[in-house]
Amino acid sequence: MDKNTINVGLIGFGTIGSGVVAIFNENIDLIQKKVGKEVNLKKVVDLDITTPRGVEIAPEKLSTEINDILEDPEIDIVIELMGGYEPARTFILKALENGKHVVSANKALLAKHWEELNSAAQENGVRICFEASVGGGIPVLQPLNESLAANHMESIYGIINGTANYILTKMSREGLEFKEVLQEAQEKGYAEQDPTFDIEGHDTAQKLIILTIMGFGEYVKQENFHVEGITRITPEDIQFASEELGYVIKLLGIARKVDSELEVRVHPTLIPQDHLLASVNDVFNGVYIVGDAVGPVMLYGQGAGMMPTASAVLGDCLDIINHPQKNIPYGPPESQVKNIKDLDNVISKYYIRLTALDQPGVLYRISKILRNYNISLESVTQKKRSHGQAVPIFMVTHEALEKNIKQAMEEIDSLNVVQEKSMFIRVLED
Amino acid sequence: MDKNTINVGLIGFGTIGSGVVAIFNENIDLIQKKVGKEVNLKKVVDLDITTPRGVEIAPEKLSTEINDILEDPEIDIVIELMGGYEPARTFILKALENGKHVVSANKALLAKHWEELNSAAQENGVRICFEASVGGGIPVLQPLNESLAANHMESIYGIINGTANYILTKMSREGLEFKEVLQEAQEKGYAEQDPTFDIEGHDTAQKLIILTIMGFGEYVKQENFHVEGITRITPEDIQFASEELGYVIKLLGIARKVDSELEVRVHPTLIPQDHLLASVNDVFNGVYIVGDAVGPVMLYGQGAGMMPTASAVLGDCLDIINHPQKNIPYGPPESQVKNIKDLDNVISKYYIRLTALDQPGVLYRISKILRNYNISLESVTQKKRSHGQAVPIFMVTHEALEKNIKQAMEEIDSLNVVQEKSMFIRVLED
Repeated sequence: MDKNTINVGLIGFGTIGSGVVAIFNENIDLIQKKVGKEVNLKKVVDLDITTPRGVEIAPEKLSTEINDILEDPEIDIVIELMGGYEPARTFILKALENGKHVVSANKALLAKHWEELNSAAQENGVRICFEASVGGGIPVLQPLNESLAANHMESIYGIINGTANYILTKMSREGLEFKEVLQEAQEKGYAEQDPTFDIEGHDTAQKLIILTIMGFGEYVKQENFHVEGITRITPEDIQFASEELGYVIKLLGIARKVDSELEVRVHPTLIPQDHLLASVNDVFNGVYIVGDAVGPVMLYGQGAGMMPTASAVLGDCLDIINHPQKNIPYGPPESQVKNIKDLDNVISKYYIRLTALDQPGVLYRISKILRNYNISLESVTQKKRSHGQAVPIFMVTHEALEKNIKQAMEEIDSLNVVQEKSMFIRVLED
Repeated sequence: MDKNTINVGLIGFGTIGSGVVAIFNENIDLIQKKVGKEVNLKKVVDLDITTPRGVEIAPEKLSTEINDILEDPEIDIVIELMGGYEPARTFILKALENGKHVVSANKALLAKHWEELNSAAQENGVRICFEASVGGGIPVLQPLNESLAANHMESIYGIINGTANYILTKMSREGLEFKEVLQEAQEKGYAEQDPTFDIEGHDTAQKLIILTIMGFGEYVKQENFHVEGITRITPEDIQFASEELGYVIKLLGIARKVDSELEVRVHPTLIPQDHLLASVNDVFNGVYIVGDAVGPVMLYGQGAGMMPTASAVLGDCLDIINHPQKNIPYGPPESQVKNIKDLDNVISKYYIRLTALDQPGVLYRISKILRNYNISLESVTQKKRSHGQAVPIFMVTHEALEKNIKQAMEEIDSLNVVQEKSMFIRVLED
């Protein structure tokens, strides 16, 4: 940018927005000296500009009028941190049309309207940057898109939802039930009052969509892949996986190329305890990337929060100021992916938990069904004995086809000796 | 760059150089489409151009004449992978003078001649990039210098030498002596025949110098900080740290701001088992960065090797082609560091191993010395009893001053009941 002063407008004065203001107050000299220009937060727009945010800001910089940013020709970069689909989408499109660069952390919007937003930026010769949308402050998208650009990506595994990871970590450490931990997380503010978005995997799915664009050049809509949350995981699953099998259970977003097909899915996954992803605990995020040249790389840090996310937003601002004409396309230039693999055709090992009556012939009936679907077992464990009562049976399969597992489990669940809907969890074998 | 074809010259056709050629053969389309230009490996110079490298290259591209690169006006980017101080330094300076950008993985040269090389690049209006010099293929320097630029860095902890980490991991897993593991590592090619550079911490120190420039804007020469290797670590140290204290031992490069002073040091360190760095095993590297906004971030991957390092080299080429005029200074623009802290003034917890005669009054004499130096103990353990014989005593101190520890250990070692030179290892408390 030729100007000596870069003016920034901020839409959304919530938690992250306050973090951005805090960085402007305290650390903007770092950015200014790196870009050799003055970087000025000119206007902050929010519907509520009266509630104190705990950060200093000159009153004349606050406004409730969106056009104070969108129609101000002096504003070069618009930071959108209001979240949600509308009016965020309309505001971003307007900003791009008006020749302003956009920095956004809005993963929901990006995941849903990627093509429209990306095209609008290109058509208007400006940039849209969104490092903060995945993994909070962790540098993830820049490395995927640039530093690692010489790689064909093989797989991306992400622990990218702090709430779900906090709940699973706490269940694992303290042997607590999902509901107990969720309630505590809500009390502590680690989980929303309506936690559906996090615990059912939707947030992970949105971030995975963005990672899949960057790593594989493929834009996959959320309705086209399997998204499964963590609500059915029990302390027994976690304990058995850990003590008997040497695995931990994590909610994973997976994008993986197998031959020329891409697997995209979100679900709880058993991860070997000595895999680095198994050590990503509490609210932390980890994105584990495997490239054909670089091999495995993991990027780790706080995936959310006021200051970490604001750090990524300002990193994007620096990049835009230094390279307003950056013409690096997002994702690899030519996708080598032929199609998105149907989950039914995915091959994996599976952990299975059944609740069946402890009586003669039960295992025979179950194993017969498994055999019919060509599923062989690595291990079977029945922990308690209680004749005629329901007891849990844990099984681990060798590699099997998802379709077969699903059908076998349906048949098994329909047996009169099986008391509860069975549970199966896919196993990461990398 | 305005040209439609970017010509690259490669100096050094060794392991990494062959990796670069392999990427040019197989993955260069990825880079070309990202930059919208043809990227051509025009010339490869090495003294030996006859030994087969296992990668395809047209014979006319090979040369033993350095000026085929340095004096070819068509070559835009010079990749230096020959290593060592001279003639690498002369070649790089000549390339910069001739207006060529330089990509280098030569940490020894960069650490020793940073000011000269950085100035030469600036004076000639070209760039010198060296992502591959620290952490092989892991994106470390770009994140530190750009993505995380809105942060004042608080600390950088690096496991950045694969050989040392392999040896410590293997000692830990198998309870073997240092020398046994070193010999095996040499046989497997994980350690050099002369392993001094890796096991005495010099390689870690050179990389730490580069990290300190990027994270703190401070250039510290190797002779000005403490560098200690892993040769004195015993299986007993590792076992005791693990089983009794819950720590693992890693060789760490540390750069840490305490008030306005910077601590820079390389030494074995006790790391809590639940710290993510403790899970960085085998030949893998991990760089753990704490910024004031982003909090902790860890970047992990293969810190060496043909293809990972070549991946970083090509990432730098992409960055140069897209931004030949990038004017982001390395490191934060204004150092907030007043001075480099003398190791004597560093405060830490310490693990101590003594070998003393098992006889009355020994512990009294030792503890009296510790008290005189104001060192208080968190724990003392004598594992074996063997009256009148030498037995190991393990101690962990509360926070103490390095100077006091050193002097106390000297006095203790001079006691006639102490049989071997004692060992102390600093403890990471973050």
